[in-house]
Amino acid sequence: MINYDEFAKVEIKVGKIVSAEKIPDTDKLLKLMVDFAEEAPRQIVSGIAMHFPDPQVLVGKKAMFVTNLEPRTIKGHESNGMLFAVSSESAFSLLEPSGDIPVGTKAK
Amino acid sequence: MINYDEFAKVEIKVGKIVSAEKIPDTDKLLKLMVDFAEEAPRQIVSGIAMHFPDPQVLVGKKAMFVTNLEPRTIKGHESNGMLFAVSSESAFSLLEPSGDIPVGTKAK
Repeated sequence: MINYDEFAKVEIKVGKIVSAEKIPDTDKLLKLMVDFAEEAPRQIVSGIAMHFPDPQVLVGKKAMFVTNLEPRTIKGHESNGMLFAVSSESAFSLLEPSGDIPVGTKAK
Repeated sequence: MINYDEFAKVEIKVGKIVSAEKIPDTDKLLKLMVDFAEEAPRQIVSGIAMHFPDPQVLVGKKAMFVTNLEPRTIKGHESNGMLFAVSSESAFSLLEPSGDIPVGTKAK
């Protein structure tokens, strides 16, 4: 169990994927550029390549991302956030808000 | 900024809304019963009545809920979780995973 303040520390926002490409010489990693209505899109590395044989299908989609994690470097690529999604043994799903929710909106 | 462990403490799961009704004598509150593949559905109170003039449209939908918050009592009704959704000034959106993700799946 956690209290509300612990929950509220986590920032999960709507981002729009503006580009997506496989990171060479990795099995699982995609490099995403994601618009959060900030000065510039953020680079976010995500281990979802197996779910998207053609990463281009992600471009233009809105999805949810954790946006206040400390930056990490994954296989030499900086990641300034983390995709927040759901997967089971046999399925994967982004969490796509309806189209009229602006990028940068915080979930709560 | 938070670290990964702080993020990982928060449990946000797929739940399926099995019933939804307006709480009488309130403007904003709906009482939801939500299936998380636990022994019994949980009662969750959410201040979203203004977005759903007919709460029945919610029944059968999968959405995301914070499931490890301390229980709260809202206007006399116990709430064992919190709807996790996005809203702007003019729009509201559940975060609906694709249908093949089982209830109880934790987002990450």
